[in-house]
Amino acid sequence: MSAVRGKFISLEGGEGAGKSTLLAGLRDCIQQRGIALVQTREPGGTAAGEAVRAIVLDPAQRGLAAETELLLMFASRAQLVREVIEPALRAGQWVLCDRYADASYAYQGGGRGQPMERIAELERWACAGVVPDLTLLLDLPVATGRARAAGRGDADRIEAEADAFFERARAVYRERAVAEPDRFRVIDASQSPAAVLQAATLAVDVLIGESPA
Amino acid sequence: MSAVRGKFISLEGGEGAGKSTLLAGLRDCIQQRGIALVQTREPGGTAAGEAVRAIVLDPAQRGLAAETELLLMFASRAQLVREVIEPALRAGQWVLCDRYADASYAYQGGGRGQPMERIAELERWACAGVVPDLTLLLDLPVATGRARAAGRGDADRIEAEADAFFERARAVYRERAVAEPDRFRVIDASQSPAAVLQAATLAVDVLIGESPA
Ligand SMILES: Nc1ncnc2c1ncn2[C@@H]1O[C@H](COP(=O)(O)OP(=O)(O)OP(=O)(O)O)[C@@H](O)[C@H]1O
Ligand SMILES: Nc1ncnc2c1ncn2[C@@H]1O[C@H](COP(=O)(O)OP(=O)(O)OP(=O)(O)O)[C@@H](O)[C@H]1O
Ligand SMILES: [Mg+2]
Ligand SMILES: [Mg+2]
Repeated sequence: MSAVRGKFISLEGGEGAGKSTLLAGLRDCIQQRGIALVQTREPGGTAAGEAVRAIVLDPAQRGLAAETELLLMFASRAQLVREVIEPALRAGQWVLCDRYADASYAYQGGGRGQPMERIAELERWACAGVVPDLTLLLDLPVATGRARAAGRGDADRIEAEADAFFERARAVYRERAVAEPDRFRVIDASQSPAAVLQAATLAVDVLIGESPA
Repeated sequence: MSAVRGKFISLEGGEGAGKSTLLAGLRDCIQQRGIALVQTREPGGTAAGEAVRAIVLDPAQRGLAAETELLLMFASRAQLVREVIEPALRAGQWVLCDRYADASYAYQGGGRGQPMERIAELERWACAGVVPDLTLLLDLPVATGRARAAGRGDADRIEAEADAFFERARAVYRERAVAEPDRFRVIDASQSPAAVLQAATLAVDVLIGESPA
């Protein structure tokens, strides 16, 4: 007998919005409900993807072209979908991913100005039709996120961008949430970690309710 | 005063066809004619590209998906075009490159079955319009090339493919040479290294003749 397909949840938001913090809480909450869960991240999550992550975030890669960055992000994603996400979903496990394709629209599209149609075309074949069932967007003013993240030590190559870059990324995230209200749940990330987790848990419980027992 | 744009020569062919051997001879021959030359290779040729090369050729990356490989090859290429090839050509230097976009049609297209239209679409924007002025295709029966390369020690991830993979790649190379006879020069690579170099030098001298003094 084949397992009921698992659900795929992606976490999105700017730097310091609280994705990693939420991920830890949400993982525990989902597992407490008896659901087998795979947690992963982007770029990364596979051996090839983590090697790509090292390139993309390396502050020494100052001259990395926007086109190169876009291709690397989708290379990591193509591998993650095939090696981790799709096999887990097919086996009935749920997948919780720190960033996914929306991040390329926001960062490589909004941030770096790569054409949205180019990104959509890559998504069509690189992601093999795997779209999140739920995307939690942690929305936060750029300055607040940067202040939160500042305590973490040296900025990576993307964190070193100017505020305007992150403002464009945030705008794209919000537009996408408006365009796909069924998939997105926008969470006010200026709330306390507990309030953010509660909002996310509510959305996840709706998803559990929709899932056959 | 801006320099006359340099010429871009790519070397293509199967494993062990003699590209690296020809490259060395051809480099000397071009430099003897007083032409400033940049020699590079694919995947690689930049810091990001060499990191990509390490992923793509690593025999441990057995599960690398065809889509991931295609995206990584174009990531390396997008960076090489912008960081090395285009700046050199614009400065009037010639560029000699061990493999370029044709290799993706042959290997990721012919070899791995990625759709040619997908590769053409990537080439359209990733290569920024940079097409070789001359492509030297070292054509050789697969078995001959593999026998030559066998002496080199452990096979990388692509060299470890079956003969049928390389037969498909060779067929695509030959089709492309037929389709673009002005750009391609097919060289019988079963000849001696000296004969191969002579054939290549002839083609290069034609290119020099076409170039303003
Ligand atoms: N709701 C919150 N309120 C206040 N501070 C928070 C909140 N959530 C997380 N933080 C703190 O903000 C900092 C950044 O949080 P976190 O690392 O979870 O963000 P992130 O979205 O994963 O960032 P990045 O995009 O850089 O990975 C951490 O120090 C974290 O403890
Ligand atoms: N024309 C030739 N005749 C016989 N042997 C050759 C010839 N050209 C090169 N060789 C030898 O064949 C082997 C492979 O040559 P080379 O490394 O130049 O091929 P290549 O096309 O660069 O291979 P790869 O695609 O694996 O990089 C080397 O040992 C080289 O000395
Ligand atoms: Mg994080
Ligand atoms: Mg070689």
